Formats: sequence, structure tokens, C-alpha cells
Amino acid sequence: MFREKIKLLDATIRDGGLMNAHKFDDRFVREVYRAVSDAGIDYIELGYKNSKKLFSPEKFGKWKFCDDEDILKVIDGIPSKTKISVMVDVDRVDPADLKPKKNSPVTMIRVASYIKDIDKAIALCNQMADKGYETAVNIMAISKALDNEINEAFEQLEKECKAQVINIVDSNGALYQETVEFLVKKARAIIKTKEIGFHAHNNQQLAFSNSIEAIIHNANYIDCTIYGLGRAAGNCPTELMLGFLKNPKYDIRPILDVISKEFIALRQQIEWGYVIPYAIAGILDEHPKAALALRESAQKENYREFWESLVLSPDEA
Amino acid sequence: MFREKIKLLDATIRDGGLMNAHKFDDRFVREVYRAVSDAGIDYIELGYKNSKKLFSPEKFGKWKFCDDEDILKVIDGIPSKTKISVMVDVDRVDPADLKPKKNSPVTMIRVASYIKDIDKAIALCNQMADKGYETAVNIMAISKALDNEINEAFEQLEKECKAQVINIVDSNGALYQETVEFLVKKARAIIKTKEIGFHAHNNQQLAFSNSIEAIIHNANYIDCTIYGLGRAAGNCPTELMLGFLKNPKYDIRPILDVISKEFIALRQQIEWGYVIPYAIAGILDEHPKAALALRESAQKENYREFWESLVLSPDEA
Repeated sequence: MFREKIKLLDATIRDGGLMNAHKFDDRFVREVYRAVSDAGIDYIELGYKNSKKLFSPEKFGKWKFCDDEDILKVIDGIPSKTKISVMVDVDRVDPADLKPKKNSPVTMIRVASYIKDIDKAIALCNQMADKGYETAVNIMAISKALDNEINEAFEQLEKECKAQVINIVDSNGALYQETVEFLVKKARAIIKTKEIGFHAHNNQQLAFSNSIEAIIHNANYIDCTIYGLGRAAGNCPTELMLGFLKNPKYDIRPILDVISKEFIALRQQIEWGYVIPYAIAGILDEHPKAALALRESAQKENYREFWESLVLSPDEA
Repeated sequence: MFREKIKLLDATIRDGGLMNAHKFDDRFVREVYRAVSDAGIDYIELGYKNSKKLFSPEKFGKWKFCDDEDILKVIDGIPSKTKISVMVDVDRVDPADLKPKKNSPVTMIRVASYIKDIDKAIALCNQMADKGYETAVNIMAISKALDNEINEAFEQLEKECKAQVINIVDSNGALYQETVEFLVKKARAIIKTKEIGFHAHNNQQLAFSNSIEAIIHNANYIDCTIYGLGRAAGNCPTELMLGFLKNPKYDIRPILDVISKEFIALRQQIEWGYVIPYAIAGILDEHPKAALALRESAQKENYREFWESLVLSPDEA
């Protein structure tokens, strides 16, 4: 599959940061940035621009705030054509924290939003676009949105939003390929002046195949993470996507190297990937937070009880 | 997705046996048989009927031979509607070892064959059918077969073979969903009097999605294994397939239980699942044997070198 328009965004540090309060050290982030750059990946997302008035820098690592100075430090001296992205959440960012693009190492800002907040997301996105950034809107938890809400959001985004890319996000890892086809085709039909992207979660081992499915139906922006590192079950593995895409600009080998050298050891410290409670959350289209809490508890391997807790009402369980 | 005709075959003990020389103890096999039966799964495959003249019972466990007496011992006293299947390999079975169906606990015999051996497979399959068994032919390593060979094999199977089911087997875990669609549609077009089945390997985390793809295009027999246990990267996880299928006859909970109680500990003893060398073998459409050997060596995490060893010629590497 070689289509020149396809762009990959490696979100390892950003989505992986949800598993360690964004406390990756500079050395690790530099190694990931180097590998992603050497692999020829188009974008790398390093974290969130959250307001320090809302979240304490004592409690969270620097990649929850992504100060330009911290970014400049980890990219210093590494040859790269990879563009840097950061994510902002509706109601959690202070737009004044963002300098005009020309004064920042950041190229792209992605606004994450539930469908109910789409008006706020569009307003925030347009502010960022006016500062000169490439912009995207990520519609989270799309598996929980009703069809009429999705139609309306896509129409609004097409008409009112300055974003170059609209990303469909399967936050719960609940989508099967038929629904990915349905959503991407719908997006392509309504949103004609922007690119469509896809961000998968791997609860049911469908992150990679759903991303391929999105590509088949003409999504051109795909999120992936190295060795699938990301919240709970993680994401579409970068190495698999590079193996699938035949675009000569990509090279899988630097990604294989950094997995050998950094990610095998990391997996001993942080748990992500195919774990049954995350699969159950995906099957039942639930946010992974209950499964994440279970994995921190003494009942971490009690899968049947966890299933019952999600499907039975409290007086039955 | 509820289609009454869909039948699941749980191949945990058979495909998993490739990782431990078929040395599962009776207690473990009983627990798996109980869970598969309680889950309402249609078939369970316990191993191979290999000739003891060719393979030593000292070197291999009993599930490489599947004597009727051994099968009767592990199923004794467990209520079940699940039919028992065993696999035979072309040139590795002595047909005289198989009693007539009416004297055996086995219902189905599946003949595994590379496409080049399809004449032998048909002859063997028809012998088994004449003994009264339900029969199937599994065409292994289909990703390595040429299109004209596949056409010819499908035509022969339709005309000459008494099997009820023809299974397409992605031995290398190399297929993407577009090729699964292509192959299953082709099979359905040529093979009109039998059912089509699909057996996936999970090298690229595509076993489940490829099995769904096969179902979408009217394959009605699907192989799966509990927690994906199987050779190298393993197979389509039974628990995910049960979560996907909405057939009321299936119950996911016994499978969740047996994973909790048996498979988490087993994974500490046997390595299967998403491991980068298996992913590399899948990406490059290679048999997993080189990757399996790598995982037994001191170079087990040297992924780039393993990649180079498969893609470069010996004088370049």
C-alpha cells in the first residue's frame, strides 16, 4: 500500500505519557525522537499543552505541559524532518500559553474533544490556526456518539473549522472494521476540504487492522505508537504500520532498534497492551478507566467478576 | 454479527501443542475442554494423529498422537456438546491408526496440506470420510501459493474431495484484510458445495480482524485459541471472537475464567503472542521457524539484525 498522501503521526510519548503521568526522562524522549526521525515519520506528538494553573507540575511530568524550552532540549542536535505536534484539551489549555508558530518548535496543534464539546473545539482550533499552526481536531470516543451527532459535528467542522485534519478516535478500542469503514466513508462524504485521520486503541487487537481499514477508505493521517505504547491496551504499533506501508520514505529499522534498546525494558515497568480487562472494556465499549483501576488492585486477574461488574446492574452483581 | 451457520473450532491444545511438543498434562486439557464446552463452542481440536512409527512417544507428548483412550480420559464426566477434532498431516499419519468413526470419540478429522500436496490430501481426506468422520482440508501457507495453484486446488477440492469444510490457513501471519477478502471470495466462488473456514496466525496482530474479514465474506468455520495460545505469535483469541459474535449459544465467561486460572501462569512458562521477531516474519511472509530459533538464542532481542538476516542476501548481511 503506497499512497503518497499518507502521513504518520507517532504519538508514543503523548499517549504513552498517560501511563506514567508524562514522566519520561529526556534521554528516553531523545531516543524516541531520533528513531522516529530516522524512520522518516511525518509527525511526532510529545504531549499535552495543559495549563499549569489546572495541573500541578509537581504531580505531572513535563510532557503534560510541553514547554517550548523542554521540547528544544530533547530535539537539540538530532537531524530530523519530523514535525512536532502537541495536543490540547478543550477547557484544559490556556491559549495564552501558546506563542505564535514562528517562535515555537511546534508545527501542529491537535485539539482533543468529545463530540458534545465540538463548538468549543472549533473555537480553540481556530485560535491556534490564527497563531500560524497546522491544526487538527480529534473527536474522542466516537463509538459512544450517536449518528445524528456525528453528522452534525462533521458538517460543522467542514464549514466552521480551520483544521487541516479531522481525526476519528476510537478511545474505547470498541470499533470493528465495518464501523471504521462506515465512519471514514461518512467523514469523507461530508468533510471535503480537509484530510481525515484515524487514532486507534488496541483493546481487541484491532488497532492496526482498523488503521488499515481507515487507509483503505481514504483516511490519510494515521496515528501510531512504538511497540503500541499508549493508554491501557495502547495503540496501532508504528512498526506494523511501517511494515504495511510501502512508501519508500519510511524505514522500519530505527524503530526495531529503539524497541530492542528501550521498550522491552520499559514494558517491565509499565503495563500496556493486550490484557484481558482492557479487552473486556473494548468488547463492552467502555472507557478503560475501570480496567486500569482493576489492574492496580488485588483482583487484577479476576476477569469474570470484572465482566459481571460491567454487564450486571449493581443489585444483580 | 449473528449468523447461525458460523461454527467455531477451538484449536488451543492442538496449535498450542506446537510450543511444548504436545506435552499438556491431562488436568490442563480437561480444564480447557470444560471451558470450551461450557462456552458452547462447536468443536475442539486436541492434537495430531501422527504415526508412532515416524515420531517417538518418548520425545513427544500424547497430543501428537491423540489415541482414543487418551481422549476418552480427558473428556470423561464433563458435560459437553462440543465435537472433537484431530488433525492429520499428509505423509505423517498411518490411516490404519484410525478406527471407524462409530468406535471413536473423534467427530472431525482435518487434513493439513501444503498446496503442492493437494492430491495426497484429497486421497487421505476421502479415506477418512469413508470411515464416517466429518472431514476438512486445511490449506497451509496460502500466502506463499500462486494464484493459478490456488484456483486449481479449489477446483479439485470442489470436484474430488469429500470434505465438508475447506480451511484457508495463514500460516505465516502475513495476510492483510484485502487478501483475506480476495481469497475467501475466490473460495466461495469456486467451492459451492462445501463450507469455507479460516485459520489465522497473529504475527501482525491481524488474526482476529482477518477472521472477522473472512466471516464478512461468508466463511462459516473459524479457528480460534484461548488467549491466542498457538505456535509463535499464536492465533485468533477465542475470547475476542466470542465477544464479537452475538450468537446466543456462546458464553464468554467460562473462557475468561480459564484464562485467569490457567493461561496467565502458562504464559510465564511458554512464550507466544506479539513478539517482534514473529511480527518481522509476518511482515516478510516467512515461516516463523527462524524467529522461533532466534527466541531460543542469546540474540533474542536483536531485531534489526534479524530483519537484515531475512532481507539481505548472505554476502550482504
